[in-house]
Amino acid sequence: MATQMAQEIAAQPDTIAATLEALRGQRSELRRLANGRRNVLLVARGTSDNAGVYGRYLLEVHAQLGASLAAPSLATHYRVERDLSDTLVLSLSQSGRTEEIVETQRWAAANGARTVAIANVADSPLAHEADLALVLAAGEELAVPATKSYTAQLTAIAVIADALGSPEGSLAPALDRVPGEVARLLAARDGVEAAIDQLHRTDHTLVSGRGLVYGTALEIALKLEETCLEPVRGLSYADLRHGPIAVVDDDVAAVLVSAGDGPLTTGMTELARDLTRLGARTIGIGGDGAFAAGCGVHLPGPDLPEAVAPLGLIIPAQLLVEGLARARGLDPDAPRGLSKVTQTDTD
Amino acid sequence: MATQMAQEIAAQPDTIAATLEALRGQRSELRRLANGRRNVLLVARGTSDNAGVYGRYLLEVHAQLGASLAAPSLATHYRVERDLSDTLVLSLSQSGRTEEIVETQRWAAANGARTVAIANVADSPLAHEADLALVLAAGEELAVPATKSYTAQLTAIAVIADALGSPEGSLAPALDRVPGEVARLLAARDGVEAAIDQLHRTDHTLVSGRGLVYGTALEIALKLEETCLEPVRGLSYADLRHGPIAVVDDDVAAVLVSAGDGPLTTGMTELARDLTRLGARTIGIGGDGAFAAGCGVHLPGPDLPEAVAPLGLIIPAQLLVEGLARARGLDPDAPRGLSKVTQTDTD
Repeated sequence: MATQMAQEIAAQPDTIAATLEALRGQRSELRRLANGRRNVLLVARGTSDNAGVYGRYLLEVHAQLGASLAAPSLATHYRVERDLSDTLVLSLSQSGRTEEIVETQRWAAANGARTVAIANVADSPLAHEADLALVLAAGEELAVPATKSYTAQLTAIAVIADALGSPEGSLAPALDRVPGEVARLLAARDGVEAAIDQLHRTDHTLVSGRGLVYGTALEIALKLEETCLEPVRGLSYADLRHGPIAVVDDDVAAVLVSAGDGPLTTGMTELARDLTRLGARTIGIGGDGAFAAGCGVHLPGPDLPEAVAPLGLIIPAQLLVEGLARARGLDPDAPRGLSKVTQTDTD
Repeated sequence: MATQMAQEIAAQPDTIAATLEALRGQRSELRRLANGRRNVLLVARGTSDNAGVYGRYLLEVHAQLGASLAAPSLATHYRVERDLSDTLVLSLSQSGRTEEIVETQRWAAANGARTVAIANVADSPLAHEADLALVLAAGEELAVPATKSYTAQLTAIAVIADALGSPEGSLAPALDRVPGEVARLLAARDGVEAAIDQLHRTDHTLVSGRGLVYGTALEIALKLEETCLEPVRGLSYADLRHGPIAVVDDDVAAVLVSAGDGPLTTGMTELARDLTRLGARTIGIGGDGAFAAGCGVHLPGPDLPEAVAPLGLIIPAQLLVEGLARARGLDPDAPRGLSKVTQTDTD
């Protein structure tokens, strides 16, 4: 019988389509709420934080807003007082109940921010307290590793960027193609078994991507780590080149993720070639033909423009993670030591 | 004979004092340049990026500014056009010649930002092109792993936060005590050999800190990695709790760093206890008495308030890294695969 995680991975064409349908009508209200504010602050932890990294890049690139990720301790521990009258806050929590995210949203509102909650549970403090709640249609998620709630978060972020960006170059047509592309990748599973075989034979795994796809790299690293119980690092292409590349040798497997177009594909192809030359086992996801040729194993990505490619690029990686956990005799649905709602602090 | 790295570590009481002396007179010009701008964007890579993380927290906590780290690819690859008329940009590069940092500073100026360069070389493009250059007095750095240029960057950041914060609660008296505290820690070397022994026996090392000390944790991780050629991760306390703690067992060594005061010491002590209970070898740097008692090995930190504690907390870690590299038969001065000025891209 398929694991819960496998079933939730398979549900994504439907959950993404349902989330798009649910949120599309909120675009005008998003524009009204943002009302010319120039800055966006994303508040999240864990998987939601990786969705936030995508939001950070997409909102800068597509909507020309200043976007950054909040450090919740500034709100919850340092209790900084700061002028947020030019800021829209986006808070992400699957459950809508992660205390430090709820508390940080309260802090932002008290400092003058307008707040948008992105939650998978409508009846939650995060959704209730926000100026506007975007409720995801991912359905209940039972496996501990988040999959369909993550892609629903990415969908919400893309809808927000589309609402706040200029009408020309709308993301809507590409977003409409996402469910079909996800279904195609799920059916194909191209390269997944070969990648599992490679990762099964290595002690040190790193994951790298850059720009709009950097958050995808971080999410793949987190999923490999929490599901397969091995330390895995997610690094931007640039940070990898700036130091950690010194530790790459034939003990290392490098999972590289790239969009099929955009200004970073050339650099990712060069990185794949360099890591292969250093002896690493390179596993590429997405990218163009040159990127595929530069990697030892290749998993094709979606046929989607860079701006929404992360919604599809995670799919082959989810299949890889789920299969690798089983290959290692682990239960992908319930890795050791993790529960579904994580609280950072007790104080 | 002492390695170059050891000599440069030992020079820090002098280089920090000289940098303080050199920059103190620029405080009024910093205030004039910032002129009420509400946002600060820090531009850096590698070690400088870790100094930038300290700046991000210190500027928010001490000067109530919105501070975030730039993603250089938004400037260099996506060429985003964005309104930076409310933003002061701080660019950090030891050499002042890292191309993507210079290019990102140019991008910021073209988009309306005021720019401050923090460089160790006065005759460099970064310093020449900035509205204001803060030139560090670290002297020439010959070992590849940055030590004295890093603490000089931290010093510059503290001077900037002091200039832009309110006059009451000035950081100046604490900053004046830094060189003496650094000298004391260098002479004592308390716990350094025991920590080297612990790290020598493990395969997986992680480093954690939070808030104002988070950047210190990232810097310790980077130095362990580039100098000792093993993959090491720097994680915030919160991110560690939110997933990766699943992989902690008795194969893992955890280096934990904490200020002696501030709102995060309790949480760091709880983390130390939890990791010790999970079987990890815990190596604590700094903190209070309870923190020290919760760690397997303890290296005392400086007697400095949290806001400037990072300038002293890195010292025991530098001694540890240099000694561990030698214990492993490696040359701390010239780790494999790294050169002093790193360029991220050729395109």
